Amino acid sequence: MNKNRLEAFSDGVFAIVITLLILNVKIPHTPYHDLLQALTAMLPAISAYILSFLLIGMYWVFHHNAFTHIAQVDGVLLWLNIILLLFISFLPFPAMLMGEYPFTTIPVVVYGCNLLLANGTGFIMFLYLMRNKSLATPAFSAKVMKIQLTTYITVNILYIIAIIIGFYKPTISLIIFAVMAVSLIVRSAVTTGIGHRKRH
Amino acid sequence: MNKNRLEAFSDGVFAIVITLLILNVKIPHTPYHDLLQALTAMLPAISAYILSFLLIGMYWVFHHNAFTHIAQVDGVLLWLNIILLLFISFLPFPAMLMGEYPFTTIPVVVYGCNLLLANGTGFIMFLYLMRNKSLATPAFSAKVMKIQLTTYITVNILYIIAIIIGFYKPTISLIIFAVMAVSLIVRSAVTTGIGHRKRH
Amino acid sequence: MNKNRLEAFSDGVFAIVITLLILNVKIPHTPYHDLLQALTAMLPAISAYILSFLLIGMYWVFHHNAFTHIAQVDGVLLWLNIILLLFISFLPFPAMLMGEYPFTTIPVVVYGCNLLLANGTGFIMFLYLMRNKSLATPAFSAKVMKIQLTTYITVNILYIIAIIIGFYKPTISLIIFAVMAVSLIVRSAVTTGIGHRKRH
Amino acid sequence: MNKNRLEAFSDGVFAIVITLLILNVKIPHTPYHDLLQALTAMLPAISAYILSFLLIGMYWVFHHNAFTHIAQVDGVLLWLNIILLLFISFLPFPAMLMGEYPFTTIPVVVYGCNLLLANGTGFIMFLYLMRNKSLATPAFSAKVMKIQLTTYITVNILYIIAIIIGFYKPTISLIIFAVMAVSLIVRSAVTTGIGHRKRH
Repeated sequence: MNKNRLEAFSDGVFAIVITLLILNVKIPHTPYHDLLQALTAMLPAISAYILSFLLIGMYWVFHHNAFTHIAQVDGVLLWLNIILLLFISFLPFPAMLMGEYPFTTIPVVVYGCNLLLANGTGFIMFLYLMRNKSLATPAFSAKVMKIQLTTYITVNILYIIAIIIGFYKPTISLIIFAVMAVSLIVRSAVTTGIGHRKRH
Repeated sequence: MNKNRLEAFSDGVFAIVITLLILNVKIPHTPYHDLLQALTAMLPAISAYILSFLLIGMYWVFHHNAFTHIAQVDGVLLWLNIILLLFISFLPFPAMLMGEYPFTTIPVVVYGCNLLLANGTGFIMFLYLMRNKSLATPAFSAKVMKIQLTTYITVNILYIIAIIIGFYKPTISLIIFAVMAVSLIVRSAVTTGIGHRKRH
Repeated sequence: MNKNRLEAFSDGVFAIVITLLILNVKIPHTPYHDLLQALTAMLPAISAYILSFLLIGMYWVFHHNAFTHIAQVDGVLLWLNIILLLFISFLPFPAMLMGEYPFTTIPVVVYGCNLLLANGTGFIMFLYLMRNKSLATPAFSAKVMKIQLTTYITVNILYIIAIIIGFYKPTISLIIFAVMAVSLIVRSAVTTGIGHRKRH
Repeated sequence: MNKNRLEAFSDGVFAIVITLLILNVKIPHTPYHDLLQALTAMLPAISAYILSFLLIGMYWVFHHNAFTHIAQVDGVLLWLNIILLLFISFLPFPAMLMGEYPFTTIPVVVYGCNLLLANGTGFIMFLYLMRNKSLATPAFSAKVMKIQLTTYITVNILYIIAIIIGFYKPTISLIIFAVMAVSLIVRSAVTTGIGHRKRH
């Protein structure tokens, strides 16, 4: 499997999922004089839209970065990547649930499990690459591996904590998801380099 | 972040949003003898479709032009670009509202705010590039900067005026949006060059 | 505007429209013992799906061929192309109407007008290229021009005839659309070359 | 027709179909205390989603592999490829039926026929390439042909068997589809190469 074609295919799926999210934000069908109130009631759905958009954007950036470490895609990486896309493509479903049943346990737990499965698949891809270094580029150095290992484990643990908390205080889980998204976005921006051409 | 991959991803999102708009134009479910009347009642929705299609097409052309001035994408430009795509992807929602509640204040104001947020994000990207010229290409000359600065400010002010007018005369706001779209399209066509090979 | 990026964007829109068509084929919600009958009642919708899929596929092939004659995209070609995409993207709407109100006048006439507008826009692009030969490639020879001119005029006239007939005998219009689609597909296959490497 | 552009267009259609599948997994609209039960009732729809996602992913991998054997796309291969995309794009329809009417004959038979038509079109493309070797790359060796011939015939026969069994025991057909999907995925992973750089 050609690496560039797999990247292009994955980019297509990411671009489609991120854009399809808006289809879940259904316009209200009320008389006009109730419209403002109906739109206000949609704020949870709109927040779920924004959170999911940023999270999928973040996974896309991560996917791009991960692929800079892959020199050759073998059959295992190919199918792990398709399974990763399966979990990414599923995200609109719990996102819609969160909009329909705001601040409740079930949608938050399903959302968290979905994120955990996506992140866990990325983690397995990373571990597989560690054990099959002939598939990796020279950029996949010991230092990079250590940073990624720490990140994957931290993020997975935080997702598990957020899922467990979700059974008791779903709103706190949501705050954890949002804070994690913002932290990871800021971190990804810093890693990409800020205000100057990054050295290669 | 590779600039070409960010452009390809953005192009994908633009192409998907612009095509998804048609899903908002729902066919009527009336007996056949009422179909002509039902289709006539859909003219506002179809007009909102055409306006939004042209506006997204215009933003795509602008995005393409803006990227000819970017040599290197740093972490800030990357995430500003994702936020810009977030606002572009959101446009089908107010477009649908305008079709469902034609010529009323709320949809027109939401639509205007959405356009303002998208254009404002583009403006911030432009300002950021101005302050970080090491990320820009040589084509990003003082003359280009002055033209873009004037355009962004003018468009933003016109959007704000259209939003304010929308509270009193939403139909006039719609006319402003349509006239702005046509003017910007004609201007983008002229800038791209007409009837002859543009010099490089 | 870079020609390759406009082609890639157009390809994206074509690929999305052609795939979105399936969303218009809604599954029935009847008790299971009525399912076979309900699926049989969907045959017009499925036929509209197949016809529209092949027509959009055909327009994509035509678009590809047309772009082999374009060396440089100026502002007019850019926006004519976006307007062409607007009409292509609109096709799912009359296709859905045809599935919902099979063999009736209004959907057939709307479908025909939509095809005429798409083909007419392609015709205007062709005429514009004829008058601005500096934008064309050497492949845009006098012979190619004559063939294209004949094709555009013939197809446009046949669409107009099919629309007029649609007011009296919509089923005959449908047969004309289907026969035209098959003829144009066979012709495009022959033009592309069959069974041997085409000379360049 | 340029081979790369046809591949890119096909990739786009595959990426869109695979991502659109989630739109068929509709969230329930019940009071919150029934949500868990409603989600449990959705397990067949979610299983149909996963099965279809993996199958389309598999067809995408197969399509990629098939195109490594095609040097030149003539008019017949072009239109056979578009017809293949037609059948792939249709898959969400029977997948949705399977979710709505789980473990019943009609959806399983329609699903099997759809898979058979897609695989049969691929088979015709393969036979056409065998008879027009001037369109093939040197990689399309006698050994490759024999392997592909066996695979196509085996898969087609298994689909036919699964369809026939579907009239009596639809659940067994589903098991056959799932086992075939997993076997073909494992085989495609092995063929792509595992754990080492594949020789070229």
